[in-house]
Amino acid sequence: MDEFGLIQRHFQDLTSARAGVVLGIGDDAALLQVPAGYELVVSTDTLVAGRHFPHQTAPEAVGWKALAVNLSDLAAMAAEPRWFTLALSLPEADEAWLSGFAGGLRALAEPHRVALVGGDTTRGSLAITITVLGLVPAGQAIRRSGARVGDLVCVTGTLGDAALALRRLDAAAQGDADLMLRERLDRPTPRLAAGLALRGLASAALDLSDGLAGDLRHLCAASGLGAELDPEALPQSPAFAELSRELSGDQRFELQAQGGDDYELCVCLPPARLAEAQARLAALNLPLTVVGLMQAEAGLRLRYADGQSSPITATGYRHF
Amino acid sequence: MDEFGLIQRHFQDLTSARAGVVLGIGDDAALLQVPAGYELVVSTDTLVAGRHFPHQTAPEAVGWKALAVNLSDLAAMAAEPRWFTLALSLPEADEAWLSGFAGGLRALAEPHRVALVGGDTTRGSLAITITVLGLVPAGQAIRRSGARVGDLVCVTGTLGDAALALRRLDAAAQGDADLMLRERLDRPTPRLAAGLALRGLASAALDLSDGLAGDLRHLCAASGLGAELDPEALPQSPAFAELSRELSGDQRFELQAQGGDDYELCVCLPPARLAEAQARLAALNLPLTVVGLMQAEAGLRLRYADGQSSPITATGYRHF
Repeated sequence: MDEFGLIQRHFQDLTSARAGVVLGIGDDAALLQVPAGYELVVSTDTLVAGRHFPHQTAPEAVGWKALAVNLSDLAAMAAEPRWFTLALSLPEADEAWLSGFAGGLRALAEPHRVALVGGDTTRGSLAITITVLGLVPAGQAIRRSGARVGDLVCVTGTLGDAALALRRLDAAAQGDADLMLRERLDRPTPRLAAGLALRGLASAALDLSDGLAGDLRHLCAASGLGAELDPEALPQSPAFAELSRELSGDQRFELQAQGGDDYELCVCLPPARLAEAQARLAALNLPLTVVGLMQAEAGLRLRYADGQSSPITATGYRHF
Repeated sequence: MDEFGLIQRHFQDLTSARAGVVLGIGDDAALLQVPAGYELVVSTDTLVAGRHFPHQTAPEAVGWKALAVNLSDLAAMAAEPRWFTLALSLPEADEAWLSGFAGGLRALAEPHRVALVGGDTTRGSLAITITVLGLVPAGQAIRRSGARVGDLVCVTGTLGDAALALRRLDAAAQGDADLMLRERLDRPTPRLAAGLALRGLASAALDLSDGLAGDLRHLCAASGLGAELDPEALPQSPAFAELSRELSGDQRFELQAQGGDDYELCVCLPPARLAEAQARLAALNLPLTVVGLMQAEAGLRLRYADGQSSPITATGYRHF
């Protein structure tokens, strides 16, 4: 495999001149300009075939998703993406696959004006590591550690779509609802505009990649707090509601809070700021739903409508 | 495998506060400060077990080398490294291996004051992708494209040590010379100080990872020029000279110019600047050897002592 040829043929138009690129792909390193008054924001995520996406995933979806999960991390910091590097491990230099993969990257990189500035291709089992670089005005990033007791725990969009899609992957019948769920699994939308809109409002945020329950634990730990969640409040898409009808409440909770791959934002907001935050996201056609409350007591609990509460453990959620 | 536990246990002391780190590992992304007047320098390289290093390589050497090959790219740009991200794919969470690997990273990261600011660990065959971030005063990076006709082609250090080590990997007897060569294969020294010392002198540079012949072609292409090399001028270490005695000139040339893994710098210098460049590198105990000449005619040629020349092809070097 000729690494240089590969990159040039398929990734050329991802490297076109963008703001701040002094020198792009083709030298030992890229040279980039970070404007005064901004902090550089950096995140790295790897996707491995068979672990982070099904082996039969279309190459376009693999390219899209590899960039999307990285952009999602920047969204959670309220940062704007600028540049990325791509380390691609491939079993063979399959032209059709590469063309599709690059097309998927481009479909997300172009509208966000994110430029490919470096990369490496190696022969091996399919895996993609992207490092994304972005900018945020100094001091304005939203961190995991800023939550306060009494903050509302909110999530953007809907939860559980990707997890239900994965569960139904081998189902014979694929109706419209299944296709909608599959789109959420294959082409998650990084909530970049939402992240920017929440600057100055949110006290803490992270992106939901492993599932709300697990991810919220990280936010709680970083903030030195605990939280309670209302399992009935987790927002469902119409497709999820339709296709999860025959499931138990436990099963639905597992998909929505422990399934992962949502790539929505989990945001902590002082109650007085909720209306403004919801109004800003409504302007983006994105719901922002209150699903819980930050509390002083460490750990994660479920609070039911009947007033009872129970701790959430790794193996399930209502142990009584 | 618990990614968070892994990173915390073994990589904690690689993430200690360094200049410019506003927020390190533990959030969705790191926040970094790029000082005014500097350009950000970014490079990504992947090492795959069995392709970029032998399977039996000690974990310390794998950690060292994974960072070294990335630092080498920054050296070639005359940049100073500051931060890096690590994407680690591992077949299993082997404590001893991880401890050794982190120790190897630390042995190189500490003296260069390079901080780990992000990462991702996944289960898979052993592969390491590092993205290194550094700084260079605006406009002072050394590029591949700046060479001029008449520039001397120079290399730092010696060539062929790692390639000969690889060739002798399974040899039964391992004397001092073999150990020296093996050290060059396992723990290449990124020529960061040399890169800085050549700022303002070198017209072009790149680092030698695939072998002088192939890498110099990239520099020639970027500069729109060609070059001739003197095969007898390629610098040999005492260990290489000792252990390559029984080899033919062709074999020696192949090891020194086409073997790869040297991680020396190839530098173009106007003749009037050679003495100053050699004096600066002598202060670093590093030889700088003239091995060729940049020419207007495209392509790469060998020039022999008898005045004859021949093109270098991918399959060999003296076809007559």
